Amino acid sequence: MQKPFIAAALAAFALPVPLAAQTGTDTRVAELRDAALDDEYAWAITEAITTELGPRLAGTPEEARARKWAVETLTKMDFKNVRDEPFPLRTWVRGVEKGAVVGDHSQPLALTALGNSGATPADGIEGEIVYYPSIADLEAEADGALKGRIAFVSHAMTRTQDGSQYGAYGLVRRTGPALAAKKGASAILIRSVGTDSHRMPHAGGTNFPEGTDPIPAAALAIPDAEQLERLVERGQPVRVRLTLTPRVLGTRNSGNVIAEVPGSDPSAGIVVVACHLDSWDLGTGAIDDASGCGIVAAAAKHMMDAGQPRRTIRVLWAGSEEVGVFGGRAYFEAHKGDNHVLAAESDFGADRIWRLDTRFAPQNQPLADRLAAALSPLGIAASRQPASGGADVSALIANGVAGIDLQQDGTRYFDLHHTPDDTLDKVDPAQLRQNVAAWTAMLAVVANAPEAISATK
Amino acid sequence: MQKPFIAAALAAFALPVPLAAQTGTDTRVAELRDAALDDEYAWAITEAITTELGPRLAGTPEEARARKWAVETLTKMDFKNVRDEPFPLRTWVRGVEKGAVVGDHSQPLALTALGNSGATPADGIEGEIVYYPSIADLEAEADGALKGRIAFVSHAMTRTQDGSQYGAYGLVRRTGPALAAKKGASAILIRSVGTDSHRMPHAGGTNFPEGTDPIPAAALAIPDAEQLERLVERGQPVRVRLTLTPRVLGTRNSGNVIAEVPGSDPSAGIVVVACHLDSWDLGTGAIDDASGCGIVAAAAKHMMDAGQPRRTIRVLWAGSEEVGVFGGRAYFEAHKGDNHVLAAESDFGADRIWRLDTRFAPQNQPLADRLAAALSPLGIAASRQPASGGADVSALIANGVAGIDLQQDGTRYFDLHHTPDDTLDKVDPAQLRQNVAAWTAMLAVVANAPEAISATK
Repeated sequence: MQKPFIAAALAAFALPVPLAAQTGTDTRVAELRDAALDDEYAWAITEAITTELGPRLAGTPEEARARKWAVETLTKMDFKNVRDEPFPLRTWVRGVEKGAVVGDHSQPLALTALGNSGATPADGIEGEIVYYPSIADLEAEADGALKGRIAFVSHAMTRTQDGSQYGAYGLVRRTGPALAAKKGASAILIRSVGTDSHRMPHAGGTNFPEGTDPIPAAALAIPDAEQLERLVERGQPVRVRLTLTPRVLGTRNSGNVIAEVPGSDPSAGIVVVACHLDSWDLGTGAIDDASGCGIVAAAAKHMMDAGQPRRTIRVLWAGSEEVGVFGGRAYFEAHKGDNHVLAAESDFGADRIWRLDTRFAPQNQPLADRLAAALSPLGIAASRQPASGGADVSALIANGVAGIDLQQDGTRYFDLHHTPDDTLDKVDPAQLRQNVAAWTAMLAVVANAPEAISATK
Repeated sequence: MQKPFIAAALAAFALPVPLAAQTGTDTRVAELRDAALDDEYAWAITEAITTELGPRLAGTPEEARARKWAVETLTKMDFKNVRDEPFPLRTWVRGVEKGAVVGDHSQPLALTALGNSGATPADGIEGEIVYYPSIADLEAEADGALKGRIAFVSHAMTRTQDGSQYGAYGLVRRTGPALAAKKGASAILIRSVGTDSHRMPHAGGTNFPEGTDPIPAAALAIPDAEQLERLVERGQPVRVRLTLTPRVLGTRNSGNVIAEVPGSDPSAGIVVVACHLDSWDLGTGAIDDASGCGIVAAAAKHMMDAGQPRRTIRVLWAGSEEVGVFGGRAYFEAHKGDNHVLAAESDFGADRIWRLDTRFAPQNQPLADRLAAALSPLGIAASRQPASGGADVSALIANGVAGIDLQQDGTRYFDLHHTPDDTLDKVDPAQLRQNVAAWTAMLAVVANAPEAISATK
């Protein structure tokens, strides 16, 4: 059948209660799913992480405080084998950050340093702006051409439900600074990789290859980027003064917090459900990713309280995701010998889940169909896109573990992503509960599935 | 007739073109109004003020630069008698501003000093927070009870189309700091007087009466105020560290920029159309009030280009409105002997005008009716509220000059008001044009009205 998920979706929507028997969804799965719509755990966890812990930049004392809280909280929730698995991290921290147009149109600019940005001298640098509408325009510039000047690179990212434009337009942040360094620029300003219209710069990491000295690199809030474009359009040279004093502190500790619901059948393997506990430092990391930690822990808790599942459910609250997925890599190195059968991550906010993507071997199609049927009453339809796995489980997926993506609505995600505005008030409790219900239903299907689970090879 | 405006509105909406003759609206008024829907002046002025001039805090070199630009621009537009009328201003400027929760839940807070705030020492002060849900709760506190502590006052302002809640809830900013000083507080934090959910503190002036030493007074961004409330609710003492170093620079120059369209009949009096050119310093003052200056100048320009009006139209771009309506007062003192017959101000953003309020003598009811008819096709209906006049013309209105308020939709105004977010991208060009059309129609009616115009006594 070409589109099994559509048939399942239509069937489920058309049917009266009880859904379970008629759609092939186990009554117990349906009951767990529907009970999870009243979940309180995810909100309590999200509220506590954002309120009591605040920003949690990787490698800092604030991230360490969060891990300590996480171990205490997951232990109190009765999870087993709760532990903090530390790993070393080269730790970058923000310093002073100030920018301003100088000259006839002098005015301050709202900006923030990108992760791994180089520093200016304490009293800043000044330079003429050279404007590039896109990363491709900067790329086309001759090497060394920007000597003594400041690159300013824009982009045209728009809102999408699946958030997929982050891949293409995110290049301006990920590779723009190294490219500008190669062209000889003394610094780079980018239009924040985001879709809002607030004076909120979007932080995020960038990378300088081995052998390239990091140049100062900052994201302008979107209104400020548009302001600078308008000034450039006037045709006169535009000069900017920039002070950024981030530092690399050296090696510090980060860590992954792990908790388990032990399964009854050790040979059936482990299902990993992940999020990341670290956040960028400008906001309190509510949608990125306190809510993800709330969602996966709440779903695992509902499973635990319903009786022992067949498979072990392992909750992974990863560290240092934002600065380069170091927690995910450390987890993979420490646990690649474990018998993982499935991995999934919640790391795209807390708006409602609308799409199910899977990465299963062909013989697991019946499992995919049961998942689709269980999720369908929540307004979630299966897609034909293969699951990519979240950042922290991507090494598992790349190494042959089956994966599931419960895709959240990302329409407003990049309004808030990595900004000071990523705070608790942006989390909608009703949509958060829909997430928990979906994750609970997913776990109820996969953790108790009688068949073996394996990935597309 | 009880509701003449409704009859006029219905009549106008029901009718095909030409509206003019059938509703009693002069053809020339209707033509001017409709042509102004294609206005380009208001956008050009708003764009230039916000882009080229940026923030324009009263008494600063930036405000002086704006006045110089204004004189040049209004002269180029062919207005007559264009001049800058300076006046002295005690000038307050912002310094460092930092706040943070300290202790177990340490985290930064987004805040900004209120105008006239006192300063902390350079290394800040620290104190326990005492929370008051409303200004009334602070008022009920005993004098001296807050010794050594920091008052934190919230409020429950909501969005309204007419913006009227600013009066009641704005008290927390206008009088809260002086009240907290009286209660012995070492500082005060208020929930920003606004309706958004962004990490954008709302600036704005406060007042300390003669004899009261100003205490440090800051507005928290609304998410930060909610965060502090959640921490207070946990029942443990919450301590905050606060550094604010604003300064009073002493007496500096501010000024009002004035331009005229001379009327053909000097005895018919002057119609003043006002806005203010100064802005708070966090944003570029797009909706407060560059757009107002664009609207009134554009409308006056359309009148000028259509031929000499009977009455002189005087455009007043006032200075120092934000810090205490000093421009409006200076104008009144300098010009109270002039023959003003009508005053109106645009100072509530650039969203569409929906309501006409007037303050006329009873014998001017036919004039009010002609105004209502002329505005009705734009979706503007007359109300029974008396016009209050904008801040900069309030002294004129209080002294017996007739007034008109063209009320703008304020639903989102207090999301942006006095924040860093008050930038050009918040101005909708289509709604801005509707404003210009309404002001042009209004001027076309009143500047050429054959009857005398006078106010309700």
